[in-house]
Amino acid sequence: MNPITFETIKTCSHTGARRGRLFTPHGTVETPVFMPVGTQATVKAMRPEEVWDTGARLILSNTYHLYLRPGHELVREAGGLHRFMNWKGAILTDSGGFQVFSLGAMRKITEEGVAFQSHIDGSRHLLSPERSIEIQNALGADIIMAFDECIPYPADQDYVRKSIDRTTRWLRRCKAAHNNPRQGLFGIMQGGMYPQLRRESARQIVEEDLPGYAIGGLSVGEPKPVMYEILEQCVEELPREKPRYLMGVGSPDCLFEGVARGVDMFDCVLPTRVARNGLAFTSQGRVNIKNAGYERDFTPLDPRCDCYVCRNYSKAYLRHLFKAGEILSSMLLTHHNLYYLGALMEQIRRSIEEDRFEALRKEFYEMTGDTWKKQL
Amino acid sequence: MNPITFETIKTCSHTGARRGRLFTPHGTVETPVFMPVGTQATVKAMRPEEVWDTGARLILSNTYHLYLRPGHELVREAGGLHRFMNWKGAILTDSGGFQVFSLGAMRKITEEGVAFQSHIDGSRHLLSPERSIEIQNALGADIIMAFDECIPYPADQDYVRKSIDRTTRWLRRCKAAHNNPRQGLFGIMQGGMYPQLRRESARQIVEEDLPGYAIGGLSVGEPKPVMYEILEQCVEELPREKPRYLMGVGSPDCLFEGVARGVDMFDCVLPTRVARNGLAFTSQGRVNIKNAGYERDFTPLDPRCDCYVCRNYSKAYLRHLFKAGEILSSMLLTHHNLYYLGALMEQIRRSIEEDRFEALRKEFYEMTGDTWKKQL
Repeated sequence: MNPITFETIKTCSHTGARRGRLFTPHGTVETPVFMPVGTQATVKAMRPEEVWDTGARLILSNTYHLYLRPGHELVREAGGLHRFMNWKGAILTDSGGFQVFSLGAMRKITEEGVAFQSHIDGSRHLLSPERSIEIQNALGADIIMAFDECIPYPADQDYVRKSIDRTTRWLRRCKAAHNNPRQGLFGIMQGGMYPQLRRESARQIVEEDLPGYAIGGLSVGEPKPVMYEILEQCVEELPREKPRYLMGVGSPDCLFEGVARGVDMFDCVLPTRVARNGLAFTSQGRVNIKNAGYERDFTPLDPRCDCYVCRNYSKAYLRHLFKAGEILSSMLLTHHNLYYLGALMEQIRRSIEEDRFEALRKEFYEMTGDTWKKQL
Repeated sequence: MNPITFETIKTCSHTGARRGRLFTPHGTVETPVFMPVGTQATVKAMRPEEVWDTGARLILSNTYHLYLRPGHELVREAGGLHRFMNWKGAILTDSGGFQVFSLGAMRKITEEGVAFQSHIDGSRHLLSPERSIEIQNALGADIIMAFDECIPYPADQDYVRKSIDRTTRWLRRCKAAHNNPRQGLFGIMQGGMYPQLRRESARQIVEEDLPGYAIGGLSVGEPKPVMYEILEQCVEELPREKPRYLMGVGSPDCLFEGVARGVDMFDCVLPTRVARNGLAFTSQGRVNIKNAGYERDFTPLDPRCDCYVCRNYSKAYLRHLFKAGEILSSMLLTHHNLYYLGALMEQIRRSIEEDRFEALRKEFYEMTGDTWKKQL
């Protein structure tokens, strides 16, 4: 039996949005879902119970980082990633592919895999489909990801065509190497901004009959309208009965647009990273806590939010903490941002159940204006 | 009526240790007590509820820092320090004296007060007895401290003699300036390492009939045996019916020795600062989480501790967080250290009630050995 299964409860009558459930060995995840990122076996500046309190039931952790430090064998000895980091919910690990491809001059790609140097100490390593799966098997996440080739943007069509074939060959090697029956392996569709190649990539990976499929290579620098158009074509190529995961997307507007096009899962470092830089997501759009206008503003970050931070602290206090370089600033803003996204996804799920997703999407844009168009 | 009152419940039959209660406008504080330090209106890396969970009911905050940032008037507008930082327990603010005297070349002392330059932006300010009290009145802590002259160590006897007289003149000015009936003003005894001057300083400040007295100018670099000897003489000069506060002391062994000599209150940045540097206080002494020996140690920091950290995380995980530069490392080690000291003070209080403080002190040194002698 597959450790990861999925069901659709309800579909939107006007958009591609769908309300589903993902069943994992560490609990049920209501979809559409946003996954907070815990790169180094911790969602930065948060206790795991706090992450849970923001509504998260599935988080992402990074294979590249954990392989280099503390090492996957150590995590295995600790009883696996869930136990090591004290997270009782479900976990998805990426393949490490995106990180090693991002190393630029410090990596070399061959058919075997990617030879790279550690960003920590410059030591030399090889990440291949087999090695990525071996590491992910040791980490023990509920969902593991195929090792794919992450191409630059823009990339020419010939290169992308060759690359999707390699990604498929690598997926087959991942599937052959995978040997932990408590983990589900998801495939990743690539194909750059070429609809025909996206279709071809989808056709190839879907043949492998996996419990879920991700859309990779979007949100890599292309304009949002381009992303939305390609996304729409990608989703069409994926089977209805399997969960669809749009990788690296977490801006509130993109979550709405992804859901509208039939995406079930999202992840992004955005809400946690911008929090540490003093930026909050609110029902009125973005709040930059550094702004001098908040110096004596004794009202909460978001008057419509009932999170721990908004119930107990003023913008003036949060601004003070940020200016004073206090750790509590990162703790509180991270909490708020994850709570905001958790509550937003909950609203989205309820709106799909009640077939009023379109109205919610409209209200969201009316409330937050063009705040999300600014560079985050 | 005085906003701060004190009662002694029980005294040790072998040492000067005593079990008491400090009544404040923000609740009762069981003594002897250790006060965690929240310099910039936050105990670093901790939510206030977490600080409360470690047993703390009285924390210290720093006038110098809050005056410079965010400014005492802003804190007053926010409804006072308790509300600004969301702390429901009691607060003590220091006078800012220790910080401005520590500025070295950036400050100049006159009878009026201390002219200094901000460590943040170099701006020029004057801190005087009147100004310190004005700032502390605005901050609104339950206990405020007199602005005293903090002398260097070592200091020659003539200088110290003149200094204690100035400290007394400044205390009288503080008392005259103080005009918030919900705050109690404590005096501070000085006198360096000269028993005769300590006696003289005590005599002078006790004349002012204040709700509590602090012992300043110890733990400034002198050897521990010297500190203990002077401390013993200091306590003799202070009235039995008032709380005694030893400033800037927080090493577990010093807490035992202070309590044995009749001290009721302590504060120190030590447990929180060393936590951020990877050092834990445990029932077996100090644990340096950076040690390679903990790399694969999947046991808790302290097998005898039932705190949140020891119940949920291994040394291997804490070491990983520290090495990876994760904020959660500071959060968890700070929590553990404050919990350790909170539990230690609770044990000390119970042992005095049951007249077995001496046995507890002996057991403490047997368990932790000479670990506290090392430089922290």
